[in-house]
Amino acid sequence: MISTALIKHIRSLERRKGRQEHGSFIAEGDKTVRELLESDLKTTMVLALEPWIRENENLTSRQSIQPIRISEKELERISLLKTPNQVLAVVNIPRYDPGPADLNNNLNLALDNIQDPGNLGTIIRTADWFGVRNIFCSKETADIYNPKVIQATMGSFTRVRCHYTDLGEFISSLDDSIPVYGAFPEGEDLYEAKLSLPAMLVIGNESRGIGPVIEPLISKRLSIPGVRNTEGSPESLNAAIATGILLAWLRKS
Amino acid sequence: MISTALIKHIRSLERRKGRQEHGSFIAEGDKTVRELLESDLKTTMVLALEPWIRENENLTSRQSIQPIRISEKELERISLLKTPNQVLAVVNIPRYDPGPADLNNNLNLALDNIQDPGNLGTIIRTADWFGVRNIFCSKETADIYNPKVIQATMGSFTRVRCHYTDLGEFISSLDDSIPVYGAFPEGEDLYEAKLSLPAMLVIGNESRGIGPVIEPLISKRLSIPGVRNTEGSPESLNAAIATGILLAWLRKS
Repeated sequence: MISTALIKHIRSLERRKGRQEHGSFIAEGDKTVRELLESDLKTTMVLALEPWIRENENLTSRQSIQPIRISEKELERISLLKTPNQVLAVVNIPRYDPGPADLNNNLNLALDNIQDPGNLGTIIRTADWFGVRNIFCSKETADIYNPKVIQATMGSFTRVRCHYTDLGEFISSLDDSIPVYGAFPEGEDLYEAKLSLPAMLVIGNESRGIGPVIEPLISKRLSIPGVRNTEGSPESLNAAIATGILLAWLRKS
Repeated sequence: MISTALIKHIRSLERRKGRQEHGSFIAEGDKTVRELLESDLKTTMVLALEPWIRENENLTSRQSIQPIRISEKELERISLLKTPNQVLAVVNIPRYDPGPADLNNNLNLALDNIQDPGNLGTIIRTADWFGVRNIFCSKETADIYNPKVIQATMGSFTRVRCHYTDLGEFISSLDDSIPVYGAFPEGEDLYEAKLSLPAMLVIGNESRGIGPVIEPLISKRLSIPGVRNTEGSPESLNAAIATGILLAWLRKS
């Protein structure tokens, strides 16, 4: 039996305010929690069904965690998933201090006010696939520790670091030798442009694109060539899709 | 004042059963409904706030539609959006009969059991960007007329046709000269592979990929090169992201 106080504590982590107050967030589901326990992140609590606890004793004991056994009913009460999946963990929010090595390192991503949690999670997962280790987010960008974001990353939150910062100031401070790429409707054809790494790729807001503070800091404007047709065309690609196409090509270049 | 019967009717279109029964679906929001009224789709009803009706008289009268004036409160009651946006339309589900010209036409997409409505909507929007006119869906694929899918297409449902069909039979019936591409972890590097159009690109289920019925029908297996790193890597890309990267490169090839 878990206490009402504990249920309340976990529930409070659904909201940004609760997470900031407690310095913790929630990660759920078998695969996600196993990846979490193999990572450098500090897990403070694991609540799980009995079979999961037995099967994953190695993992939890290595991190000196004593899992709390809960019933399926209790898991349903605390889980935020539509289909609860065996285990829920409470994790300390890490404090990263990105140094110069992080900034100059290969392929980097900056997010200027991405709002949708699903998009943010998918962007983090995609960045992980293409070897991006650091994502620099404007302060208005959705919170990576929102449970929906964590879920959508499919475990990639354990490998990719998100830094919330004054994005204008940060990009201005970059070495001039690092190109800053951004997508604009009238930009140069992605596949024709001369690209180089290390680089910083900036992705803008879902409906307004890259904002007026960041726009003048872009050193090369790119566009993803589509097909115009007589019946009309979509105004833009989804922000996460654009991120995928741009990262794939930058990585290949 | 709209009647309780009308509210019930609109509500019934949230579910697949109701949509099939009435042969109708819902499209919402200013931009979406304007694109809808400029398309070939048959809109049967428009419910909107007074200012919207005044501003869009040209569009509605061209389609001989008499919009129903509703209050903000009424719109809130019938809307499925978090933030209702001025207008909601009821549309006839179109019946397409894809002919040989559709099949041989340039770049085509097939979806083998895509389940997430957000993914499906984003895939349709992305397909539209890259000039795909026809998407062939397995019968298990999520319903394009689900309001969440319609919303995520951002108007692209008015230009891209989705056909629900026995996908195995359909792909088997294709001319041998049309290559069938699919993504697999051990496939050939996308950027090294010899690709040609017209082609059929198959995208598989979010967690299981391309299923056992379709797998033997793939004529070239492709993979999207990522970066492996010592801390582990994501198992896969999100299905919509993979679609974007594959379509972008096929279109460029």
